[in-house]
Amino acid sequence: MEGEPLSALCTPALVVDVDKVKRNAKRMIERFEKLGVQLRPHMKTHKTLECADIMTGGSRRCIVVSTLAEACFYADHGFDDIIYAYSIPFDKVERCAVLSERLELFQILLDHPDALEQLKKRPLKDGRLWHIWLKLDCGNGRAGVLHSEPEALRLAQAIAQAEGVQLTGVYAHCGNTYNCMGVEQIQAVAQETTSLTLQFIEKLKSIGITCKSSIGSTPSCSHPVKDMSRLSEVHPGNYVFYDVQQSLIGSCSLEDVAVRVLTRVIGHSPHRNQLLIDCGWTGISLDGAGKLPTGNAVIEGHSNLKLVSMTQEHGRVEPISGPLDYSKFPLGTLLTLIPYHSCATAAMHPVYHVHSEGRLVGKWIPTRGW
Amino acid sequence: MEGEPLSALCTPALVVDVDKVKRNAKRMIERFEKLGVQLRPHMKTHKTLECADIMTGGSRRCIVVSTLAEACFYADHGFDDIIYAYSIPFDKVERCAVLSERLELFQILLDHPDALEQLKKRPLKDGRLWHIWLKLDCGNGRAGVLHSEPEALRLAQAIAQAEGVQLTGVYAHCGNTYNCMGVEQIQAVAQETTSLTLQFIEKLKSIGITCKSSIGSTPSCSHPVKDMSRLSEVHPGNYVFYDVQQSLIGSCSLEDVAVRVLTRVIGHSPHRNQLLIDCGWTGISLDGAGKLPTGNAVIEGHSNLKLVSMTQEHGRVEPISGPLDYSKFPLGTLLTLIPYHSCATAAMHPVYHVHSEGRLVGKWIPTRGW
Repeated sequence: MEGEPLSALCTPALVVDVDKVKRNAKRMIERFEKLGVQLRPHMKTHKTLECADIMTGGSRRCIVVSTLAEACFYADHGFDDIIYAYSIPFDKVERCAVLSERLELFQILLDHPDALEQLKKRPLKDGRLWHIWLKLDCGNGRAGVLHSEPEALRLAQAIAQAEGVQLTGVYAHCGNTYNCMGVEQIQAVAQETTSLTLQFIEKLKSIGITCKSSIGSTPSCSHPVKDMSRLSEVHPGNYVFYDVQQSLIGSCSLEDVAVRVLTRVIGHSPHRNQLLIDCGWTGISLDGAGKLPTGNAVIEGHSNLKLVSMTQEHGRVEPISGPLDYSKFPLGTLLTLIPYHSCATAAMHPVYHVHSEGRLVGKWIPTRGW
Repeated sequence: MEGEPLSALCTPALVVDVDKVKRNAKRMIERFEKLGVQLRPHMKTHKTLECADIMTGGSRRCIVVSTLAEACFYADHGFDDIIYAYSIPFDKVERCAVLSERLELFQILLDHPDALEQLKKRPLKDGRLWHIWLKLDCGNGRAGVLHSEPEALRLAQAIAQAEGVQLTGVYAHCGNTYNCMGVEQIQAVAQETTSLTLQFIEKLKSIGITCKSSIGSTPSCSHPVKDMSRLSEVHPGNYVFYDVQQSLIGSCSLEDVAVRVLTRVIGHSPHRNQLLIDCGWTGISLDGAGKLPTGNAVIEGHSNLKLVSMTQEHGRVEPISGPLDYSKFPLGTLLTLIPYHSCATAAMHPVYHVHSEGRLVGKWIPTRGW
């Protein structure tokens, strides 16, 4: 189908504008080159080889993944220097050990002394070390040992002193930027996470421990504060696609969003003043419900239309106000949805259709599972 | 991994109790044998060959699918007599024509005169006919021509009279049973849908048109009303797995639910009185948000625990009341989630792990896409 217009696709279909992907990737690369900070892009949004190549500038080095399935997928295709950015789950220690022994540099996260004990029970072959980032919670409220707990420092020390392991760095995810509205709020969270992480690094230094630092999230890395130049690494991911959520947070403009879901009108329901489209929650996900005046997505070019509800393979669309003019939407009409959350939407698709200026140029196949 | 206990699985993992699947399937088969109505099971919940074999009693005949990808998948594996239960989308007419020419019996749905025109433009080879079910909306409020509209009868007549097509039947989905609580309400909707469908069939008869009738949904087919014995077919699907939603509607007991998501404790957050688990929305879906006192799922055996929020790969769990006793949930502890909506949960998994009495017996691989 290469060379064909997007309208040649059967719907629903996830389409990726490769020019926007490249532009988003390039901007992020240049932004952190200028700050002198290593960019380590996160793969969790797309999980494809092609997009990873774009994000790493073809180096196939220095990436973050959210699942061990991703780690294996990238390792199988010649990628290396991978952080599995997930506090090491006990059921996956052996698989992580195998990757650590196979790759030049496979790195993991850890936030509990019990996890350290698990690693000690599985020393790596050939004198290799487990490369560990201490996962720090700097206010995000998900994984990580809380930055202010004395336990955090004790755990860092325990890692630094243990046999067979190495404290590579301190890793914080500022996912709390997702609650922000606008650059000022984003930068306040970015500053706080950076400061707390760097203060922690200083505390470690004062007891003789030196290691790297990394923070990240798409909002903070789209609008970095000056102090982020003092970090070793950053690890954003969603920026390569962006989405409506990121545009509302202030990370990007809607113009920067590189993905869409194409859908078609498949039914008219004049007695309900609604249209039916062939995109249900299998096509766009249930993320974003109740978050937008236009429903579960933005319908491009139709600001008066709302995606009011979805079942597995159907979406109900109605006007925000007034009666629907059905003559403008005959059956078969192509509509374009901009996803609220591109990570969630991409996760629903076994294939992404890639285009340049509206002409298909190829397909990307993501990896799935854990 | 065959013969291993479920605890041998890496998590998150979708596990299917094959004995419950067989029992649910058998009950449905027997229920409609007794009523003398053809059961045409829907594949949309699981999308696997193995489960289709169980639901069809090994005949590989007489199924319903929700996507053309499913239709092709089943056709490729020797299934036949397939209804693509979706008002024919204009972008898929050619693919449907090919299936119609290839299978003994491929059937489609239609609810608009424009769709009939599309089919007329693509006559089938070798004198074959398009087998069409008129999709009727009997109060569900999704696809279908409204039963009370004069247009419905006109469209049925137009199909019956057109060249190259055949009016096979009238098809109604009583998805409005999903708003019911208890058998009485389910049966009221089942009765209404059945009556309206049969009345429509009578109206057709009075103008000389004879065709089949089919209604279906898991709630109505789990508690059929007597009049349903006058239908030609029924087409439920979810019943083979069931889920928490179906138990709340009254279709089944929680004991009948054949699927679970296994997850493990991967973090302790005493400052938030929370646990972290390795199941985020990629593991259980976002369906059911706000519907249960226990959050996005039921945590089996722990009625005081609530899955309060999820991100892509993390779930936050906290007690409904009181402080969490962390000594009962060391890192690595296996927890079992009963999905709110098994269709949505299954859609997130590239593989289902099948067990009998807690011992793994195999894997089922679903088809995906459209």
